[in-house]
Amino acid sequence: MKRAEYPPTIKALIGELKRMPGVGPRSAERIALWMIQSRDAHSLELARAITEVTKTIQPCSKCGFFSISPVCEVCEDPERDSTALCVVEQPTDILPLERTGAFRGKYHALGGRISPLDHVGPEDLRIDALIERVRTEKPSEIILALGADVEGEATSNYIAALLRQTPVLISRLAQGLPAGGGLEHADELTISRALSGRTRL
Amino acid sequence: MKRAEYPPTIKALIGELKRMPGVGPRSAERIALWMIQSRDAHSLELARAITEVTKTIQPCSKCGFFSISPVCEVCEDPERDSTALCVVEQPTDILPLERTGAFRGKYHALGGRISPLDHVGPEDLRIDALIERVRTEKPSEIILALGADVEGEATSNYIAALLRQTPVLISRLAQGLPAGGGLEHADELTISRALSGRTRL
Repeated sequence: MKRAEYPPTIKALIGELKRMPGVGPRSAERIALWMIQSRDAHSLELARAITEVTKTIQPCSKCGFFSISPVCEVCEDPERDSTALCVVEQPTDILPLERTGAFRGKYHALGGRISPLDHVGPEDLRIDALIERVRTEKPSEIILALGADVEGEATSNYIAALLRQTPVLISRLAQGLPAGGGLEHADELTISRALSGRTRL
Repeated sequence: MKRAEYPPTIKALIGELKRMPGVGPRSAERIALWMIQSRDAHSLELARAITEVTKTIQPCSKCGFFSISPVCEVCEDPERDSTALCVVEQPTDILPLERTGAFRGKYHALGGRISPLDHVGPEDLRIDALIERVRTEKPSEIILALGADVEGEATSNYIAALLRQTPVLISRLAQGLPAGGGLEHADELTISRALSGRTRL
């Protein structure tokens, strides 16, 4: 006796959808059924958008951000301040920094941070490329905008040590209370860092 | 000055992903970046799977389930009992019924239930097709497996009234305590239905 079950193409689609981050088996099934049942061409548009992205997007060979050309628009822009270079872990970290509107310089994404537990060493990151850029572009300041956790700090220290011989100012993001947050919501480490980094009024 | 922002193809992809059920702007962005950054061909496989599904899947012209042919395998199967016809709201409701292994008959998906508040009337559902099937296939029993809520019951009653003149037994799913659930977790309506539907030991 035949049992009712999804045809193979639907099963294959659910299998592919399940691989997406944050999408479990239930959501994958729900999305697959939505794709089948939505009467208009939504799902074909999505398939097209995926193909377009994989065809057009490449990492900028300088900063590592998503780009449609070998070098991205920000790296090419003569109006951006090339004396300041901001180092981030991931290319996606560039967007929140841009949203502040407080930085007019250029970026360099490492592609991660040194993390022995995850088998990520300096050679897995774009640190050599950073040193090379410092040598050729000669920025006057390197801002290390890495995470305020153990791996982020270790990576910052590693890079700072590498650049110690280079005539460049090295800074890193301040650590302290988050904006709008009272002391009652901050953990001890945050408060102790806010204390030691206190600024004069 | 150029600001760093996602290239248009990434923005388009995020826009398409956001339309999927249960996927908000944040998840859409996360999925898009995963598609770009996953080094293997995952995302192209997904695009292909979506295109495949939209090309191959159609509703079975008899029962309404997902099918790769005009009539699905279950409707075509001579080994399935054609004297019992189980009516469900959505084609997806067929799978949980199949999983029980307790039903060997055929199915008919209405495509929804009567719901005046959602502007769904009998004419929007596959009720005419059901009456036609009862007339031509002459099942001996119709099992109404619709939801145990107001709309499901109204739709069951509506169909039962339409078929009153037809020599077919009409039944519907039992209502009562869910398996494994104690009285302390059941609401009053469930308990009152379990009471009125009590079975002899």
